[in-house]
Amino acid sequence: MENWDVIVVGAGPAGLTAGIYAVRSGLKVLMFDEKLAGGNISNSPKVENYPGFTEISGYELSERMVFQCKTLGAVIHDVEPVEQVKLEGETKIIVTGNATYQAKTVIFATGSHHKNIGVKGEKEFNGRGVSYCGVCDGTFFKDKNVAVIGGGNSACTTAIYLSGLAKHVTIIHRKSSFRAEHKIILDATSKPNVDVLWNTDVEEIKGDNQVKTITLKDSFTGKKTEFSVDAVFVQVGEVPNSEVAKVCGVETDDLGYIKISFRQETNISGVYAAGDVTTHPIKQIGTAVGQGITAALEAYNYIQNLSVKRTVLQS
Amino acid sequence: MENWDVIVVGAGPAGLTAGIYAVRSGLKVLMFDEKLAGGNISNSPKVENYPGFTEISGYELSERMVFQCKTLGAVIHDVEPVEQVKLEGETKIIVTGNATYQAKTVIFATGSHHKNIGVKGEKEFNGRGVSYCGVCDGTFFKDKNVAVIGGGNSACTTAIYLSGLAKHVTIIHRKSSFRAEHKIILDATSKPNVDVLWNTDVEEIKGDNQVKTITLKDSFTGKKTEFSVDAVFVQVGEVPNSEVAKVCGVETDDLGYIKISFRQETNISGVYAAGDVTTHPIKQIGTAVGQGITAALEAYNYIQNLSVKRTVLQS
Repeated sequence: MENWDVIVVGAGPAGLTAGIYAVRSGLKVLMFDEKLAGGNISNSPKVENYPGFTEISGYELSERMVFQCKTLGAVIHDVEPVEQVKLEGETKIIVTGNATYQAKTVIFATGSHHKNIGVKGEKEFNGRGVSYCGVCDGTFFKDKNVAVIGGGNSACTTAIYLSGLAKHVTIIHRKSSFRAEHKIILDATSKPNVDVLWNTDVEEIKGDNQVKTITLKDSFTGKKTEFSVDAVFVQVGEVPNSEVAKVCGVETDDLGYIKISFRQETNISGVYAAGDVTTHPIKQIGTAVGQGITAALEAYNYIQNLSVKRTVLQS
Repeated sequence: MENWDVIVVGAGPAGLTAGIYAVRSGLKVLMFDEKLAGGNISNSPKVENYPGFTEISGYELSERMVFQCKTLGAVIHDVEPVEQVKLEGETKIIVTGNATYQAKTVIFATGSHHKNIGVKGEKEFNGRGVSYCGVCDGTFFKDKNVAVIGGGNSACTTAIYLSGLAKHVTIIHRKSSFRAEHKIILDATSKPNVDVLWNTDVEEIKGDNQVKTITLKDSFTGKKTEFSVDAVFVQVGEVPNSEVAKVCGVETDDLGYIKISFRQETNISGVYAAGDVTTHPIKQIGTAVGQGITAALEAYNYIQNLSVKRTVLQS
């Protein structure tokens, strides 16, 4: 069975950064990703908020991180989903479809995935007016009319954020009340340039090169209308990719995000988490990077202490 | 008096990132730095661990962040030290040598500065053979014999840099092992013209116009020797630049690092801190970046709530 110092599950910005730092600390690092290494940012058409790059495509940024991580010596197994982990004790066991591996530490950097609304045009206009991240793409729609689809915390928070940039924000929600925190609802609905269309379903997203209109349907009357917008921010939920960790005893919050300390520790000794899969309040490339660094250096310290412990035991 | 949404004190990676995110959130952002914008990384000869760049000079990386921040619209006042702040209440007051400014929020990203070793000759020969920055002054000691004092990452990194310029580099460390990253230690000690004097204290720096010798003391035997060198690079640690914040009630730990929450909040409402000046356990460019993002987005949320409160009061 292959023995490693650190196994990193997930090769997006958090995982790749953890890989870079762990390898530079002299550790033997193996990384897995269920897809190709790079993470969700690979799909972002344009990134303008990662310090160091005034503008770069998400694909290029992720490729640069993958290259850096591999060049330093981390081993990355693309398209090899982790199926099972055993985390108790000093030796952690990781089982994939291909083999079984051993490591002293495990870092979960498995990210999250957004829910789609699944309507015609959503996929076609992704990156051309359809977005899943207000903080990432809001600035491209300064003084424009935008719609936010959803009725939870992330929809309301996105509407609040966009209200400072866009001319007008319309929250489109299929139900007659929000399921967000009271304070967040108040914040969103008190903005003079935010209003809400209740009981309204989105049926289609239309446009030419860019989004132009969305077809709406009143869920009581069934009446359809064409609604003009420059952008549609889909905020019907994020789901953390924490299933494998959770099943093996890693503690999560009610939504499934892995609970972490200031030092990216989980509730299990030698097991860390970083990036979008964690309870950290901000989900950005730069925050994932910061967390990846901390997780790797804490894993390094943990391993150093293991050797100290062993030395003491032997002496 | 000038009114701003966010005043960022310090324009290194943490401050510049906070600036980037605050401006992109539609806020009016003013930044101060007591030196030129860029922070301590401007002096790093080589950065290999910031994700996205396999290798870049610290100067270039900081210039890229400064450019990005200014291009987006943040106003940066270089070489304008903040002398006094008043942080209680909703309006924060910032006084510099030039003017008095107002802001809704303040982010301290003031970084840290190097420690002195506090021996006779250190101050007298500063700039005449005593230096705190390898990349700034190394070139003056081409083909000369130099010493680096210290045993952490910065001491080893400085030794690596100087090994390419100087005839010989001696790392002088008071302990019997380094506390640096494994790869950095390997890089430093594998250079043919770098060696290490362990368990050795520097007692005095001597010379005429320029440094000539240092007095060393073996910490076990107490034996003193005169050691010939042309330059001494002091790399013994960092002190947080938190004085201005601390005087105005911002809580710090015993070492002077600003205490922060998970959300980069200090103990004062509307006041945040990010980067090397905080109690966060890891001091890296990437962790400073992550903290800068969180501080800016939390400052943005705080300002949004201020407007909600005002609307409620007026209605």
